[in-house]
Amino acid sequence: MKLIQLNETVTASNDRDAEALRLRMREAGTLLVNVMSSPGSGKTTLLSRIIRDLKQLKIGVMEADIESDVDARRIEALGAASIQVHTSGMCHMDAGMTASAWEAMEAEDLELIFLENVGNLICPAEYDTGAAKNLMLLSVPEGDDKPLKYPLMFQKSDALIITKTDALPYFDFDLEKCRERVLKLNPGIRIFPVSAKTGEGMEPLEQWLLAQVQAL
Amino acid sequence: MKLIQLNETVTASNDRDAEALRLRMREAGTLLVNVMSSPGSGKTTLLSRIIRDLKQLKIGVMEADIESDVDARRIEALGAASIQVHTSGMCHMDAGMTASAWEAMEAEDLELIFLENVGNLICPAEYDTGAAKNLMLLSVPEGDDKPLKYPLMFQKSDALIITKTDALPYFDFDLEKCRERVLKLNPGIRIFPVSAKTGEGMEPLEQWLLAQVQAL
Repeated sequence: MKLIQLNETVTASNDRDAEALRLRMREAGTLLVNVMSSPGSGKTTLLSRIIRDLKQLKIGVMEADIESDVDARRIEALGAASIQVHTSGMCHMDAGMTASAWEAMEAEDLELIFLENVGNLICPAEYDTGAAKNLMLLSVPEGDDKPLKYPLMFQKSDALIITKTDALPYFDFDLEKCRERVLKLNPGIRIFPVSAKTGEGMEPLEQWLLAQVQAL
Repeated sequence: MKLIQLNETVTASNDRDAEALRLRMREAGTLLVNVMSSPGSGKTTLLSRIIRDLKQLKIGVMEADIESDVDARRIEALGAASIQVHTSGMCHMDAGMTASAWEAMEAEDLELIFLENVGNLICPAEYDTGAAKNLMLLSVPEGDDKPLKYPLMFQKSDALIITKTDALPYFDFDLEKCRERVLKLNPGIRIFPVSAKTGEGMEPLEQWLLAQVQAL
């Protein structure tokens, strides 16, 4: 398994770096999808399911974590290209870090790369990573009030995936109220309630991802 | 309800500010407990339960959030002193912000104040708020691998509260494995598995809190 230790890019021009990376990846024919959420909302489980379901695509994953390589090992076990990025304590990925991780992967033939960002509902939303699309996860146990408390990430995301819907009977989570709150912040966002465990709701999400790859 | 909007304290001496605040609060006879966790791990629900259970103590809560006042309203409804702190987008509280919030509360007779820090498992661990004790919550749905990924917060905390234990039957969370991982990072930490919903496990935690107030 590849592992790369990165420090925050020392440049004030993150937005410009992000734009440059987006262009380079488009030229390479690779869709980069930035996946953001709180710790423990099920990013790796969701990505594992997508990798198993979308076998027709060449998929890779950049696993960004402060420490540990448990997530990259799970992805690698599925046979997908993966790299573990250690962020040197940083609470988010920036465009320079993402570019370095992509180069270290040495996998220019991939059609879809997920950047599993550091588990954090705040800081990752403040940095453009150069991804073509931004996804966020909100898990049912976290509660339907999160759009009220962390609006920026909901505003920055192209799609919201509401995960662990199999746990809806055990938690006080109002799907309609959540949807209303999110659409008020970001009327154009796509919302996909899913259970990566049971597979419920996965198909519309996977069709949307396929369409994004084809539209690149 | 009081609300205060704070900006990051412009000082390089956060540790010194924190030490000064700790001394001032000890002189005032108030135990400040910093409560940290991911978004949605149940901080407000836990504090609501403690406020209801420990009626013999004068308790207040500082609710730190980027936006919204839903948590402070829940605490206020219980009759406890509360202040909503808006962090101007900041992902953590520092000692200067905490001191300003305490002053704005104008409640020097409180015996115990909880600082409900911003929901974030990374950045709050990097800043000493001036609290006498640091607590962190880890909820069962987040998973037992979190000590591997976010070690600093586990190292900085005096006690770990494993919340939502009523959800243990529905999630793949190994309590013993989690305990081992945490004790490896921080052998002196106290660990309290609780369900604020059913009340299971609350008593040892509340006795520990009472003892901390008495020991101030």
